[in-house]
Amino acid sequence: MNKSNRQQTMNKFKLLKTSGSARAGELQTSHGIVSTPVLCPVGTQGSVKALTPQDVKDVGMTMILSNTYHLYLRPGMEIIKKFHGLHNFMGWDGTILTDSGGYQVFSLSKLMTINDEGASFKSHIDGSAHVLTPEAAIKYQEIIGSDIAMVLDQCVAHDAGRAEVWAAMIRTHLWAKRCLQAHTMKSQLLYAIVQGGTFPELRKESAKNLTDLPFDGYAIGGLSIGEEKQTTFDITQITTELLPADKPRYLMGVGSPEDILECIDRGIDIFDCALPTRVARNGALYTGSGRVDIMNAAYRTRESAIDPDCNCYTCRHFSAAYLHHLFRSKELLAYRLATIHNLAFMHNLVASIRQSILNDNFHSLKKEFLSKYQTTDEATRISQKKKWLASREHDSE
Amino acid sequence: MNKSNRQQTMNKFKLLKTSGSARAGELQTSHGIVSTPVLCPVGTQGSVKALTPQDVKDVGMTMILSNTYHLYLRPGMEIIKKFHGLHNFMGWDGTILTDSGGYQVFSLSKLMTINDEGASFKSHIDGSAHVLTPEAAIKYQEIIGSDIAMVLDQCVAHDAGRAEVWAAMIRTHLWAKRCLQAHTMKSQLLYAIVQGGTFPELRKESAKNLTDLPFDGYAIGGLSIGEEKQTTFDITQITTELLPADKPRYLMGVGSPEDILECIDRGIDIFDCALPTRVARNGALYTGSGRVDIMNAAYRTRESAIDPDCNCYTCRHFSAAYLHHLFRSKELLAYRLATIHNLAFMHNLVASIRQSILNDNFHSLKKEFLSKYQTTDEATRISQKKKWLASREHDSE
Repeated sequence: MNKSNRQQTMNKFKLLKTSGSARAGELQTSHGIVSTPVLCPVGTQGSVKALTPQDVKDVGMTMILSNTYHLYLRPGMEIIKKFHGLHNFMGWDGTILTDSGGYQVFSLSKLMTINDEGASFKSHIDGSAHVLTPEAAIKYQEIIGSDIAMVLDQCVAHDAGRAEVWAAMIRTHLWAKRCLQAHTMKSQLLYAIVQGGTFPELRKESAKNLTDLPFDGYAIGGLSIGEEKQTTFDITQITTELLPADKPRYLMGVGSPEDILECIDRGIDIFDCALPTRVARNGALYTGSGRVDIMNAAYRTRESAIDPDCNCYTCRHFSAAYLHHLFRSKELLAYRLATIHNLAFMHNLVASIRQSILNDNFHSLKKEFLSKYQTTDEATRISQKKKWLASREHDSE
Repeated sequence: MNKSNRQQTMNKFKLLKTSGSARAGELQTSHGIVSTPVLCPVGTQGSVKALTPQDVKDVGMTMILSNTYHLYLRPGMEIIKKFHGLHNFMGWDGTILTDSGGYQVFSLSKLMTINDEGASFKSHIDGSAHVLTPEAAIKYQEIIGSDIAMVLDQCVAHDAGRAEVWAAMIRTHLWAKRCLQAHTMKSQLLYAIVQGGTFPELRKESAKNLTDLPFDGYAIGGLSIGEEKQTTFDITQITTELLPADKPRYLMGVGSPEDILECIDRGIDIFDCALPTRVARNGALYTGSGRVDIMNAAYRTRESAIDPDCNCYTCRHFSAAYLHHLFRSKELLAYRLATIHNLAFMHNLVASIRQSILNDNFHSLKKEFLSKYQTTDEATRISQKKKWLASREHDSE
């Protein structure tokens, strides 16, 4: 990679143990050590919805995802710059990972046109015109001061044809190189994004191309956007097998408890997903036996916590009946308490998975969890996902 | 009061000091000592909007107001009973004052008809039919287990004519006696409500009538419902002069910082008001120089807290610019942080007023506060209040 003026940083990822393909590791960042596997809650607009940074820390989470596209549009880079970065602006001293904005330009903005130079688009907030280039995506992420930045990639729909997927992948590789060139912030890690849709040979080409370049980690993009679950798992597996063992792998936009188990089993280290927080605000709460709807009449009189085995703030202090009442009454407190619970559930699950990898009994934990956890059926899941994708402009997550 | 089978309880109010008509005292309740003057935040539906009980405690507040009408309709008395009262249901171990529901039946319910027996109405939630009698209002408040219960009163509009105000007052007296008769819970204090609208001679008649009965305290109802501010103050003063010095006085539905100062100056000990929490959710934040609109462009870049003199959680952790961003982005965290700030401001104001009474320099504190605090002009205030009263069915506060 002679054209890059970027110093290859020391490898900040330490692989501690594997159990099959599942991996336990440690990621060193400018804002602390992150134990992997890890799930990042989503703080798109510089706030994990309904929570303070302290709430996020209290559930045990150490790394959040924020978003360049959203922060660029609002509050704007001059504000983030004035505050010397997002950590200080939002009061979060843990690790921040930022997405480059590629996916949001593709899925949220209006009148997007794209060429090799970059993407022109209109803001979903006020219709103002903007251009996002690989160089700009890096510059903005350096202003944000995230601990891990992502390259700008071109995203296409899950049902795009091979030619379109191929062309977007080629452009993603071109942009990845330009991002490397543009990147100057030594304390910030930079991850590439493998594209190639659901075409194994394109995934292979993309992984080959990007792993030849000195990135600090590799993400898998273009999944969990409407394809069938088995496809997500298969492409994840094919892709991780092509990635270097000594670099962290990040599966973008996944997922549910069962997806996380399946994809850790396929070699993923880092996840981000708006699901736990978004469904919490709709009253869908995780328990060991599956996601339950707190609005259900069964909870109206229940004196125990929503999950009596859970040790989160919500379950320690409030009954299921009180949560039911708050949701029925549309009280704002409902959203905070439900979000705390779902994040705690996910954090505890991921932490127990990590421990099982260290103890080399990941597969028995996986089997036990899935035998008790009732997953959402596939048809409902896809229909919900599509509905959400269609309605996304009204929700910044 | 021979007809009452209620034991006259020991006086639980201790008047410690006066400064002019302003009073500092202590109110002993089943859930702790409440220092007066005191402002109760409103937890109409068993939740101070956007806050946990711990948040309320952290700002220093010790007593909240909840509402019989709302709790009776949702979650319903059988739920509250199952939880042995509201304290346990909502997780608040401080003092609870409950309004009887008279005002909500009058202002929120549908198709209300009223006679000496009680009020028939339809629920604003689902249209179901209900009857509220003085006996039922007491029974429900005993189930709720509030520390202070209110009698059922008949409320009329602020511009009702003398005959209507008189008739409602006579019925309020009749109901007050029936509430006393019905009341059996010894650990619960029971306050009467002086009515009489803006007619001094009716207030006199009402106060005379009710202070002949063995109530634990006296509220002033039928104010702050659309009349001019000076009228609120004048009627408050006329009424407190008629009330016994050794019993607490509670002015219902007041108020703003300046109203609280003026009414403490007229001998009030207890206030409740949804204003600090309601305006917080609209981005109106209290500072020593007046209420500011956090959405204002001036705050977009402000690195200091919204009120640099404030020691609340919000001001200790977040800049005005970040709060501005959260409100602009409609992030849920905005409502919690703003509510914490406004309640802390009000609590600190009331605490400093109390200290000034104890130090006998209340009037200089009042003068100093009002010289710096820019109040909302009268026309805007009345227009906002009317708008809110008209829209109330959509907001449980």
